[in-house]
Amino acid sequence: MSTTIEPAAATSPDDGPGAGADPVRDAVREVAGRAREAARDLATAPRQQKDGALTALAEALVANTERIIAANTEDLERGERTGLAPNLADRLRLDGPRIAAIAQAVHDIVRLPDPVGEVVRGSTLPNGLQLRQVRVPMGVIGMVYEARPNVTIDAASLALKSGNAAVLRGGSAAESTNTVLVGLIRGALESVGLPAGAVATIDPWGREGVQHLMRARGLVDLLVPRGGAGLIRTVVENSTVPVIETGTGNCHVYVDASADQAMAIEVLMNSKMRRTSVCNAAETLLVHADVAADFLPAALKALDAAGAKIHADPRALESAGQQGIAAEAATEDDWYTEYLAAEIAVRVVENLDEAIAHIRTYSSGHTEAILTSDLRSANRFTAEVDSAVVAVNASTAFTDGAQFGLGAEVGISTQKLHARGPMGLAELTSTKWIVTGDGQTRP
Amino acid sequence: MSTTIEPAAATSPDDGPGAGADPVRDAVREVAGRAREAARDLATAPRQQKDGALTALAEALVANTERIIAANTEDLERGERTGLAPNLADRLRLDGPRIAAIAQAVHDIVRLPDPVGEVVRGSTLPNGLQLRQVRVPMGVIGMVYEARPNVTIDAASLALKSGNAAVLRGGSAAESTNTVLVGLIRGALESVGLPAGAVATIDPWGREGVQHLMRARGLVDLLVPRGGAGLIRTVVENSTVPVIETGTGNCHVYVDASADQAMAIEVLMNSKMRRTSVCNAAETLLVHADVAADFLPAALKALDAAGAKIHADPRALESAGQQGIAAEAATEDDWYTEYLAAEIAVRVVENLDEAIAHIRTYSSGHTEAILTSDLRSANRFTAEVDSAVVAVNASTAFTDGAQFGLGAEVGISTQKLHARGPMGLAELTSTKWIVTGDGQTRP
Repeated sequence: MSTTIEPAAATSPDDGPGAGADPVRDAVREVAGRAREAARDLATAPRQQKDGALTALAEALVANTERIIAANTEDLERGERTGLAPNLADRLRLDGPRIAAIAQAVHDIVRLPDPVGEVVRGSTLPNGLQLRQVRVPMGVIGMVYEARPNVTIDAASLALKSGNAAVLRGGSAAESTNTVLVGLIRGALESVGLPAGAVATIDPWGREGVQHLMRARGLVDLLVPRGGAGLIRTVVENSTVPVIETGTGNCHVYVDASADQAMAIEVLMNSKMRRTSVCNAAETLLVHADVAADFLPAALKALDAAGAKIHADPRALESAGQQGIAAEAATEDDWYTEYLAAEIAVRVVENLDEAIAHIRTYSSGHTEAILTSDLRSANRFTAEVDSAVVAVNASTAFTDGAQFGLGAEVGISTQKLHARGPMGLAELTSTKWIVTGDGQTRP
Repeated sequence: MSTTIEPAAATSPDDGPGAGADPVRDAVREVAGRAREAARDLATAPRQQKDGALTALAEALVANTERIIAANTEDLERGERTGLAPNLADRLRLDGPRIAAIAQAVHDIVRLPDPVGEVVRGSTLPNGLQLRQVRVPMGVIGMVYEARPNVTIDAASLALKSGNAAVLRGGSAAESTNTVLVGLIRGALESVGLPAGAVATIDPWGREGVQHLMRARGLVDLLVPRGGAGLIRTVVENSTVPVIETGTGNCHVYVDASADQAMAIEVLMNSKMRRTSVCNAAETLLVHADVAADFLPAALKALDAAGAKIHADPRALESAGQQGIAAEAATEDDWYTEYLAAEIAVRVVENLDEAIAHIRTYSSGHTEAILTSDLRSANRFTAEVDSAVVAVNASTAFTDGAQFGLGAEVGISTQKLHARGPMGLAELTSTKWIVTGDGQTRP
């Protein structure tokens, strides 16, 4: 009953019988293969060397500001010709201050501790074997994102800091900018004796290239898609490479009967309006029926004054009407919708049970907050709500790697495997067991 | 730029447009949906209640020995009629002592600590927010395995202990046995007030049922395939549900120049011959050229005397010939092959670099052992070999959850995401962050 194992580097599920010649597939796999080779050197590179590359990168970014802006201008002009939306153009744009901020973020990563080599647990077994589980880099991390050149530097820096190689797909909108940035990264690597192939882009092979990246299990160890729900879904459904599903945040703020209502208004407004286009923004307000009469008027007024469009259930609709506040009748779809805008759904619930049931049905598992003074309610909420982050009397806006003290953020995972919630450097690592003996054999 | 999120329970990638009516898909999703409902109760069930169910199960197994054996006999007779191989029939067979051992294993699981609720890390943030990351059950775990009824009890028990619901596919060969076993599990659950739907089988829907289980992302949180490489590959390539890839073990024993050769013989023989059909059995012996003349004769003689078939590179072939030991010339395939039998591939390497390079090329990432007295060699080997378990002067046979002190074993993961190496209860959990404040908002 022997089993022949396909060699990881030579074949993969992507190379089945009848796969035929495919220059794009071959090119992508070659890039990934070189990254895999480079990852071996990175895995044992001392922190000092990795930090040296990052420092060189930060300096190169500032020193090459004009080159970067020139390439960026190319991208923006091409975007204008092809009808790129203004908010996307804004995400794409780099200027002196933005580049300086990106460089500073790289310096900040240098200051973070190196997760590689951490001993997660260990013991000496009864038979004398010394056992330890240590952190090791994941290996090769693929990052697929859209039109945000700062992610190029951010993702590559976090990968390098944690001893990983990175294969990037930044999208065609930022292609000229990313070409320059990747060149600077590779130069910084070589300047400290690390292989340039440790960071590479597959942008030249466009969408087709991403398809092959997703099937390169065995060459690529982890795929992190960052962007809209469509991109993430595509990757999740088609990838044989392990994926971390990030970001979709249909977050809830639930105001319980015993909530401090003034606090609740503050927390609600911060959760909804601090930044509306981020995944941790609240999208639905649930209000306990017992306090609806008092709380809803203040809440709806504040939301309306801040310019938020309101979708309301019948009771909230009535409350809005009484104040002359414009609101639409909420549909089933509204409870599912992540608006990513100055827009919110409002529903009155009978009690905590109903709030929890609503969240269980409609939530994307990101962040849910309860406002309450009742200990038991707080405990039930945190125990029974199954999301990555559950908050009591605090804004949903805190769901963020830097806010949590993780030092950096790769993204916010909404899945349960491997990482959940904000992901920092440790989440870009795996572990291995080291067993040290003196000739022990198993009876 | 709003995003409508499909409700997890009502749709999934399995229900795309044009999916049409599919009674098998609907049946499987209903089973998974009920497991998901049950998982909610399990997530907050106190340890005492879960242990009560397990104890009731262990007692029910012993009390129902005759019923189990009767169903098992049906399976065995059917197997005989349909040409089931003897070794598979042996895996399938249950008798009084085997059932007692399975029941004892359940009692052992009761004694393990409950991983749910463990605080993995926590802190108080500068702004006063209390942050903690706690272990929570994964939710619904699908287990797909072949013809080993003890896995039914084992998998369900480990899932329950860690607060998870389980959906099982045990295969048609053991169908009658597993039907009885699942019935006993459900009875034990109900006897302590836990929902019977927490453990279910999809065996009635055969292979087609597994297809739908694999696509039930959102209903099923984790899939653990246990079995041959073909089964695992099928699941890894087709599942949209996160998978833990287990088991393929093309393990290596490398005898370095400074190895204690008597120790090396003992460790080699234990690694290869203790149990040949398990994933942690050594499949390739690498020998440093400097000691080949001394070591190979003893090693080949011991392997041959133990009945192992030898596939040898030219130098090892010559050594075998000099002793009149039968050996075949090794091909490239042999370096990749996990024999799972009394069979081994032998190669002489020039030095440590070559040993590491060989392992990097051919290993499945399971377990690799070095025999050496040289500290530097040991350190290089443990640093540069990227497998789940790396051993120094110890048998590969120790790669096992119970041996590692994890208390139980769900399988041995050869992937890097989430779990790597032997998996215990903690690997069947996820985490969530609990943020407790007093009205904090983010600037």
